[in-house]
Amino acid sequence: MHNHGGEIYGHHYRLDYSVNVNCMGTPESVIRAAARGAALSARYPDVNCRELRTALASFLNIKEDQIVFGNGAADVIFSAILAWKPKTVLVPAPTFAEYEQAARVVDARMKYYILKEENEFRLDRGFLDELTPDVDMVFLCNPNNPTGQAVEKDDLLAIADRCAENGIFLVVDECFNEFLEEPKAYSLLGELEKYENLMILKAFTKTYAMAGLRLGYGLCANRAFMEKMAECSQPWSVSIPAQFAGVAALKETEYVAESMKHLRKESIFLKGELIRLGFRVYDSRANYIFFKAAPDLKQACGERGILIRDCSNYKGLAPGYFRICVKKHEENLELVRVLEEIVNG
Amino acid sequence: MHNHGGEIYGHHYRLDYSVNVNCMGTPESVIRAAARGAALSARYPDVNCRELRTALASFLNIKEDQIVFGNGAADVIFSAILAWKPKTVLVPAPTFAEYEQAARVVDARMKYYILKEENEFRLDRGFLDELTPDVDMVFLCNPNNPTGQAVEKDDLLAIADRCAENGIFLVVDECFNEFLEEPKAYSLLGELEKYENLMILKAFTKTYAMAGLRLGYGLCANRAFMEKMAECSQPWSVSIPAQFAGVAALKETEYVAESMKHLRKESIFLKGELIRLGFRVYDSRANYIFFKAAPDLKQACGERGILIRDCSNYKGLAPGYFRICVKKHEENLELVRVLEEIVNG
Repeated sequence: MHNHGGEIYGHHYRLDYSVNVNCMGTPESVIRAAARGAALSARYPDVNCRELRTALASFLNIKEDQIVFGNGAADVIFSAILAWKPKTVLVPAPTFAEYEQAARVVDARMKYYILKEENEFRLDRGFLDELTPDVDMVFLCNPNNPTGQAVEKDDLLAIADRCAENGIFLVVDECFNEFLEEPKAYSLLGELEKYENLMILKAFTKTYAMAGLRLGYGLCANRAFMEKMAECSQPWSVSIPAQFAGVAALKETEYVAESMKHLRKESIFLKGELIRLGFRVYDSRANYIFFKAAPDLKQACGERGILIRDCSNYKGLAPGYFRICVKKHEENLELVRVLEEIVNG
Repeated sequence: MHNHGGEIYGHHYRLDYSVNVNCMGTPESVIRAAARGAALSARYPDVNCRELRTALASFLNIKEDQIVFGNGAADVIFSAILAWKPKTVLVPAPTFAEYEQAARVVDARMKYYILKEENEFRLDRGFLDELTPDVDMVFLCNPNNPTGQAVEKDDLLAIADRCAENGIFLVVDECFNEFLEEPKAYSLLGELEKYENLMILKAFTKTYAMAGLRLGYGLCANRAFMEKMAECSQPWSVSIPAQFAGVAALKETEYVAESMKHLRKESIFLKGELIRLGFRVYDSRANYIFFKAAPDLKQACGERGILIRDCSNYKGLAPGYFRICVKKHEENLELVRVLEEIVNG
């Protein structure tokens, strides 16, 4: 059974609110670049992703050899796990399920730090006490999926320090960082060289709405670890269309700025409407909204042609929690109309 | 250091003879399909590859649930290794390097069955004696890369029987099978249901010249193993462009037939020319030619703008072995001209 968002195939949904990609759609320039890449695909991809690497290093103002590309961020998660081979992995719960799936490949024992509802599922300082020498690796999704809660830089630094003291490899998944109002205030990007055992995960997937092309990356200043990761994955993991698309995407600064402006406005609108309809809404900072409702809401929406994410299969969550992405205003109006219909019986 | 064929990036080669993709180039229909897929890539790929799965099952006349798709055949190799977790892996040598790379991820001990030059690097019946209970997994590339030698069905059955008796998982890589004159005489495709621990590896890469799109697959009738493989890899490993391209490729029967006719004719031509130039040529059955020459031949060709595959980094080979693919006649004439220039000093 597949239990992720985006499972639209074999169904007939009018609207997919279950995946968190940028609702403005893939930029035309990215689609064209991917198509140009497809036309050149008789050859193997550049295993070093040279053009993309140069472009991204310049875009992020980091060194070229601090980037490892993968077939989506999920691919990088698997390579990182295979390279570090943790015996014990700590994650907050609820969080993105792929960390645990990858950890199970190396038979790692899972430890969960259960996020509390009364705390709106925010990560609190109690997490630091869990960073003990028996833990080998930590995954921290920031902002967290599915809750949308974000950890501030001061707290991130405290976590990174504690990990360094205890020999724990820290992976911070910043795939949704761009959607925050102040991305830098919640990022460890500037601290890569300070922490040997730190990797930041990112993807083109959400920001540029290119989930189907598969392009993610890890950032890390630990050269030996990066080499180990390369040994733990095939050389040709990033397709030519994805490499070309990535280069084009990085030029789309205006698209990203416009998208963020739109998302913030619509997020406020949608949260307000959800509250008006009586749902318990948590304060997500990302391009999706996490809320509580009757456990059958997904089915009720599905019957009306709208797919939302039922989060009951997340570790640490009971039935009745849902995640929706923020889409365009007309679509959001339609979602609200459908929810209103459901609520009013 | 990257040590595969196709390493054309960052260099300026006129002709790349180092990769074994179909020299007729990617079919136009495949490029168009991939571009259509790129345009739909705001969504996640279908994790079940439904349309592609139905098309391929019908094309191969096997059951839909006997296929596992991956981001190229290399991805399937890694998942198979992670799912079986072999302690000891046996491969003939020389052979495709990815089996060993993947085996090292699970710290498997490698055993090599050294193929003998006096035997033209053919796999002989002595291989059966190596299939002992201490071996957990065997990879057999058929026809073999880089030698082009093929194992006949009778011998394959003997190997599969011996593996079954000893609890060995057998992976037969048939990525180059289509290039043989009688593919079925060298394939275990019809025997999937007879052997629980058998997987056949295939890819779209070579047959349809779509290396840059990344699409490979494994065929296996062992449902529990297939589920284990799914647990050992991310759900979204096959991009939308690759899924669309695969569906289009399977309709290109005339392209494949024409390609094979061409390749056979040109292979005979090229082999004859290589022999005329004094090289020792082995009897490859695939779309590439394996031969012996002075150890500096790659460099000499490179200086003249042609990339060939130096096979000296294959386990079991000394310096002085090379592999070239078979390309179009005009290109092959140019290669021969360059080789002649080198040979004549």
